Amino acid sequence: MTRLYLWGGITLTLHDYHLTLNDVATDKPEYLETVFSLGNGHFGVRANDPISGNPIAGTLINGFYEVAPISYGEGAVGYAKQSQTILNLPDLRHLTITTVSGHPFTTSQRTAVNLDLRTGTLTEQYQVSSQQGETIQLTVKSVMGQTQANYWGISYTLAADSYNGALVVSKSIAVPAEAEDIASADPRKTRMAGIPDCKTDFPAPDLQRYQIKTKRSGQAVTMYLGMTAPQRGTLLKYRVDLGDNQPHTLSYQAYVGNVSANNTIDPIIPTMDHTFKTLEVDSQSYWEKVWAQSEVTVDGHAELDLAIHYNLFQLNQAAGRDGRTAIAAKGLSGSGYEGHYFWDTEMYMLPYFIYTNPQIARQLLLYRYQILPQAKQRARQLGVEHGALYAWRTINGEEASAFFPAGTAQYHIDADIAYAVGKYYETTGDLDFIEQCGFEIILETAKFWADFGAWHQVDGQQRFEFLTVTGPDEYTALVNNNYYTNRMAKHNFELVGYLARKLAERDPNRLAAYGVKPADLAQYKHLADSVYLPYSSDQQINAQDDSFLSKPRWPSDRMTPEHMPLLLHYHPLTIYRYQVAKQADTLLADYLFPADLTLAQLKREYQYYEGVTTHDSSLSRSIFSILAARMGEPEKAYRYFMDTARMDLVDLQKNTADGLHLANLGGSWLALIAGFSGFYLKDGVPFISNHLPKELNQLTYRIRIGESLLEVALSAQTTKVQLLDGPMLQLNVNGQLQTLDHETAVAVTDD
Amino acid sequence: MTRLYLWGGITLTLHDYHLTLNDVATDKPEYLETVFSLGNGHFGVRANDPISGNPIAGTLINGFYEVAPISYGEGAVGYAKQSQTILNLPDLRHLTITTVSGHPFTTSQRTAVNLDLRTGTLTEQYQVSSQQGETIQLTVKSVMGQTQANYWGISYTLAADSYNGALVVSKSIAVPAEAEDIASADPRKTRMAGIPDCKTDFPAPDLQRYQIKTKRSGQAVTMYLGMTAPQRGTLLKYRVDLGDNQPHTLSYQAYVGNVSANNTIDPIIPTMDHTFKTLEVDSQSYWEKVWAQSEVTVDGHAELDLAIHYNLFQLNQAAGRDGRTAIAAKGLSGSGYEGHYFWDTEMYMLPYFIYTNPQIARQLLLYRYQILPQAKQRARQLGVEHGALYAWRTINGEEASAFFPAGTAQYHIDADIAYAVGKYYETTGDLDFIEQCGFEIILETAKFWADFGAWHQVDGQQRFEFLTVTGPDEYTALVNNNYYTNRMAKHNFELVGYLARKLAERDPNRLAAYGVKPADLAQYKHLADSVYLPYSSDQQINAQDDSFLSKPRWPSDRMTPEHMPLLLHYHPLTIYRYQVAKQADTLLADYLFPADLTLAQLKREYQYYEGVTTHDSSLSRSIFSILAARMGEPEKAYRYFMDTARMDLVDLQKNTADGLHLANLGGSWLALIAGFSGFYLKDGVPFISNHLPKELNQLTYRIRIGESLLEVALSAQTTKVQLLDGPMLQLNVNGQLQTLDHETAVAVTDD
Repeated sequence: MTRLYLWGGITLTLHDYHLTLNDVATDKPEYLETVFSLGNGHFGVRANDPISGNPIAGTLINGFYEVAPISYGEGAVGYAKQSQTILNLPDLRHLTITTVSGHPFTTSQRTAVNLDLRTGTLTEQYQVSSQQGETIQLTVKSVMGQTQANYWGISYTLAADSYNGALVVSKSIAVPAEAEDIASADPRKTRMAGIPDCKTDFPAPDLQRYQIKTKRSGQAVTMYLGMTAPQRGTLLKYRVDLGDNQPHTLSYQAYVGNVSANNTIDPIIPTMDHTFKTLEVDSQSYWEKVWAQSEVTVDGHAELDLAIHYNLFQLNQAAGRDGRTAIAAKGLSGSGYEGHYFWDTEMYMLPYFIYTNPQIARQLLLYRYQILPQAKQRARQLGVEHGALYAWRTINGEEASAFFPAGTAQYHIDADIAYAVGKYYETTGDLDFIEQCGFEIILETAKFWADFGAWHQVDGQQRFEFLTVTGPDEYTALVNNNYYTNRMAKHNFELVGYLARKLAERDPNRLAAYGVKPADLAQYKHLADSVYLPYSSDQQINAQDDSFLSKPRWPSDRMTPEHMPLLLHYHPLTIYRYQVAKQADTLLADYLFPADLTLAQLKREYQYYEGVTTHDSSLSRSIFSILAARMGEPEKAYRYFMDTARMDLVDLQKNTADGLHLANLGGSWLALIAGFSGFYLKDGVPFISNHLPKELNQLTYRIRIGESLLEVALSAQTTKVQLLDGPMLQLNVNGQLQTLDHETAVAVTDD
Repeated sequence: MTRLYLWGGITLTLHDYHLTLNDVATDKPEYLETVFSLGNGHFGVRANDPISGNPIAGTLINGFYEVAPISYGEGAVGYAKQSQTILNLPDLRHLTITTVSGHPFTTSQRTAVNLDLRTGTLTEQYQVSSQQGETIQLTVKSVMGQTQANYWGISYTLAADSYNGALVVSKSIAVPAEAEDIASADPRKTRMAGIPDCKTDFPAPDLQRYQIKTKRSGQAVTMYLGMTAPQRGTLLKYRVDLGDNQPHTLSYQAYVGNVSANNTIDPIIPTMDHTFKTLEVDSQSYWEKVWAQSEVTVDGHAELDLAIHYNLFQLNQAAGRDGRTAIAAKGLSGSGYEGHYFWDTEMYMLPYFIYTNPQIARQLLLYRYQILPQAKQRARQLGVEHGALYAWRTINGEEASAFFPAGTAQYHIDADIAYAVGKYYETTGDLDFIEQCGFEIILETAKFWADFGAWHQVDGQQRFEFLTVTGPDEYTALVNNNYYTNRMAKHNFELVGYLARKLAERDPNRLAAYGVKPADLAQYKHLADSVYLPYSSDQQINAQDDSFLSKPRWPSDRMTPEHMPLLLHYHPLTIYRYQVAKQADTLLADYLFPADLTLAQLKREYQYYEGVTTHDSSLSRSIFSILAARMGEPEKAYRYFMDTARMDLVDLQKNTADGLHLANLGGSWLALIAGFSGFYLKDGVPFISNHLPKELNQLTYRIRIGESLLEVALSAQTTKVQLLDGPMLQLNVNGQLQTLDHETAVAVTDD
């Protein structure tokens, strides 16, 4: 089906996309729970089986976490003191069905699922059985409030099957039993947070209130569950008689309150007057807007076309929108990585929002501004007197990484966040944000680098170095002059000057308010110019760090599937002493700074690092895809892309049950936009180059630069750019600078 | 008092040495408990106050430990799985005194202590008070069995003071309450082991049996406590009437059984017929022999003379003698560092035993042979297919270090153990041990290095490198080509050839039994010749590692006392990125291999590394002292020596309460022998050079080379060597090769 939307004055034609059981890897319940999870940035609902699923876990609230002391076999000063773990909250989907005589229907079989990516409605079919073997048919529809982000609705339709008698249906939020914290040996999994204090009551006969106070993090949330009209007042016991051979529909809604930071329960009972339909409408109109801004279609490959829609759907579901939360490594689809925010947000997910939905990008960056005080404190704990060091993994801004060689030592997160702020400004021109928040982030991270770095005189030249750091590649730790880190720090220094000029243009006195003097700017420029970038003259490539290239390569007989991922088979010390990379590292810098190197050098680097990279990280293949495209190797780009575009739909890493790989979802968008269409922004001018692989007939996507919404369509023959909305602008298509206005699309015929 | 001993046909004159309260740093009970602790290699008894001290802890058995899972905030493959923690066992010294009407005497004041270093008898005076303020005088004498190493004896002499009525004295081993394991944030302290299962009964009316089974490590020990004749049968209740104004003496003995490895209790009740006197005689005759072999006296500095006797006394008390135990970092004087054995044993303590009491040295090396299977397994866990990797810290042979950057990464322990085996053979000529145990240790460690190292071609030359290692300096971690590590590994390779020749001389077919072929020997020689030793041509010194010299120096404003030791004030990441060393590292190799470098280079290296070393480790100053002496700077050598010779007697590190610094005790002997007297062994020939500092009138010591016992006496004027026992031998004194026989002492008059 094709729908027509009117948005911002333009009529848009969008095809429907539905994800069904045929489109996913397995029918394992915990996998399906993740893949069909719903979310709205505030909270997520895993698609638990409503009858036999786990009633005490299934709901995740962004930024709602418990802390616990981290226990170290051997501790040291400055170690992260507390874990932060997103809470697994009770399932809102659970339903109890019994016969009137009390025989329960306890088992169920999921026979069909349909996730409508245009509307956000999830529809499921179950055959439900009693212990006596009697069966009924159950259809479940659920939907998130989107502008009404505290709400979620569900409707259950019961129909007779082998059983056609009377039923009692009841629904409530389960109170979990006490349980211990459990840490997992697999660092990619989560620990289970301790169960919080839960209390439930019924402030009205049709309304369950469920109060949750964490025991140590000082947070609280109230959830409400109620039936929607016309069945009000019968939440706990509703009688349905299937004897009329009609389907009977029961609708419920839940309200998930905002997270209170001071352990207090909000006494105000929310309005609970949504019908399932009003929530559906809210969801659908929200998604229409999302798709209108960020639609990506791939002609000639239906499976991929569905996958990319799914990826963007989930990316949008995961992103915090309140300025106090970000995007967890698993979004709101699972509690893997404890619900922590990493650098992935800025480097892999934020670009999609910057270029399609800058309001959300701004909120995500606002979160980083909110935790700047914790980052300043962290810098002091690391013995650095000035500036701020962002936590490697965190929810509340404090460091929660319990293994510093692959955690805190990844100082590059500071420059990653600064990079994202700069890119946000370059794309949106939102100087207000820079003035209020962004410049302070960039200044404090630059101060950190200035204090953290060290001068080193080599052959009469003073170079500014960063020692004992870990780059993105976690298979190489505590090295000197990681190329990526140094290059990003250099950029961080440059951003101070760049944004200082923009601020001074608006208000010449503004800089003084930040305590920035002209001499400081000169010093940042000097530092930027002095940052050492390791280069191997033997190989004529940028060197990942001072010693990487001279280590032996990982033995090829340990590169076979039963040894992968290496981190689950080898001690870190074993991995560290080899020249082996978990993911794109130097190449990640090459992707970010295309002007840094010639095509010839890029090709050398690519070939070299490809030979030593295992791609054990889900952040790797998208970057390899982008660079292959840029190098004019679209087939290789396509292969890397296809390995990841459907990562969760094929359960590539075998751990989608723990949650979706959010960074990879963002990476798949990057591979299409920055890879196949060669998109990047340089001094505000978009560059597009057609690198479409032959497997795809056409790639069409929308992207926003400032106030201008573009639609780009690439085929083997042409590269076409249309201005859908906003002011005219200049752009460079396949090497030609063009002016784009509303009258004519830019169309370049490829050779 | 001066005593005359007859030993091995020679009459020896030895002065008395007593350690009293005037000779120690403080009167804090936990400090005194450590300093006046008694031991015999099998078990140790801390000098708890017998009235008010802690009755549930005070006894430590060498190698008796509990295990517990190590919890990691973020775990990984191959991490040490279990902690091993020496058990704090109930105090054997505790005594309960009440009046006949039941008023207890609960407080006491230690008024005098006298530890006789010649006899091993500890005598203490207490004034003991009841809650009513009545006082009595208590004299406590205690002594360890030494050849009877399961026994310990104590006698209490009660005398009237303000109270002169009747008393009831009772004594038993306390059963501890359940308690949790506790980990400490200070890595130098111990965790508290969980309380084991304890059971007590009275197999005879005069005999308490106390059975201890660990809950997880599978060990068991039985202890017995009984009164000695003539008060038998009255252990729990003995009536003393002070009305006669005579002192009353009560004697007890304890038996501490051997550690059972299979959690079973030995049913045989030991003979308990020692009197306090027979144990005193056993102890005294043992110590006579120790002193006869290893007497060191320092004329002109009574304080130091006492200290060095104390150090050797404690070193002997700590050393396991059964071939299944070694010397814990704190000996048997406290449970710091969990009772673990480290490399300190081989590099700092073993030399004293090799040169004075080779039987004990052999037993200590035998322990390493016993745990070779665990070391082989550990190598596999670290991804190395051949050879053995000894655990960095262990009791049972398995790795117990929970922080690999400063634990498992210190691979040099392998070469340290191999070095000790080689030095043991070179000194004793004990080829039997090499054949049965030693060669296998050296072969397996060499195999490890061969597999672990990596070839690296630089300027057309193939060099053999060791990457991502940590050297002795724990303030620099995970670096490439640590000089000390590489130099020791080279020596490890060389030892294979050296000992293979010795074995082949005895039996040409012997090598084949180890699976060693001539080609293997050629390969080890090739590896030894190819090991890369980093050298800075700028500084003309050996470089601590590939990057150490190019890091910035630790800021001088953070070098003041409130910042020290750095490890308690800074995150490891902060420390690692500076050029700062916790202890002698490259200089330790220089000390071990004097022929490696010229005096000029040694002086440059010394000056350089002295400038970047904090001496935060107790293993540092003794090495700086030795090298200063060797460089002809006896005054500097003296200062370093004096900073450590009395380390525990002045409580220099403020943590002697946790136990004595055993490595430093050994280091103080090394500083005298290898430093002030410049002693070293080269191809079996002892070299002696007089570097006596002017603060000492004369240094006299005994040392054993093969079967020959020498006495060396150094003064400002002369260097005199006498053959006390054994065959004549050649030696080099102050650069002159001399023959030493029984007729004439070698006496060289210094210029």
